[in-house]
Amino acid sequence: MTDTPAYDDANVFARILRGELPAHKIYEDERTLAFMDIMPRAAGHALVIPKAPARNILDAAPDDLAAVIAVTQKVAKAAKTAFGADGVSVHQFSEKAGGQEVFHLHFHVIPRRAGEDLGPAGVMGDQAAIAERAQTLRDALARI
Amino acid sequence: MTDTPAYDDANVFARILRGELPAHKIYEDERTLAFMDIMPRAAGHALVIPKAPARNILDAAPDDLAAVIAVTQKVAKAAKTAFGADGVSVHQFSEKAGGQEVFHLHFHVIPRRAGEDLGPAGVMGDQAAIAERAQTLRDALARI
Repeated sequence: MTDTPAYDDANVFARILRGELPAHKIYEDERTLAFMDIMPRAAGHALVIPKAPARNILDAAPDDLAAVIAVTQKVAKAAKTAFGADGVSVHQFSEKAGGQEVFHLHFHVIPRRAGEDLGPAGVMGDQAAIAERAQTLRDALARI
Repeated sequence: MTDTPAYDDANVFARILRGELPAHKIYEDERTLAFMDIMPRAAGHALVIPKAPARNILDAAPDDLAAVIAVTQKVAKAAKTAFGADGVSVHQFSEKAGGQEVFHLHFHVIPRRAGEDLGPAGVMGDQAAIAERAQTLRDALARI
């Protein structure tokens, strides 16, 4: 065990926040950003992050964490309705051993269908399909 | 897709909250309770729940959700330190298709070690070992 390493702003989510990389954004407010996972483990897989630097749950400011979970709830509700999902899985991974790949705090929101297992991690999705699902989620979030 | 069913207070976590079933409690405040999962997927696997009725993230009151994630963070930090873990995985499952088995909102906090996969769900753990890990977590939480 070591202490949580310092935040490194070269990670891809920090680059998305700075506008250096594109993202299928679905929601944004002062403290948070939500966008589609480009390697979805199920159709409609989205991510919610704080705008402030935080490596993961181990070093996040409690106020940022509260803002992120509030948006995570909104996205979960929107996803369940918009995609007609049977359930939702929320994952938050801290450090590599915990499953984390990008070292900016994020919550996964994954719509689930009965009888369908999660797909593998790390497989690039179809960008047109992801863009379409982003629009569906944006519309649903606007109605919440 | 159907709407989220109504909360049913016959679930085992509601029974723990009412004192009708025992639990290895590690933390408690006005709004939340944290205790050990008796079917741990890794050593030190804990759960955080709101005291107020909520089936899952789809129907939880935002204030309860905020209280639960704040305690989830405390337990994650305590677990990483207390068990010398390399990382932490947080899971929150909503509805059966999402992975939920007990229909009272809960966050799983699972200490992780590099190179060790999660164990299977639904396998009863050794109660003496769980009681010992509960004490370790209580002590760590008291120092946070």
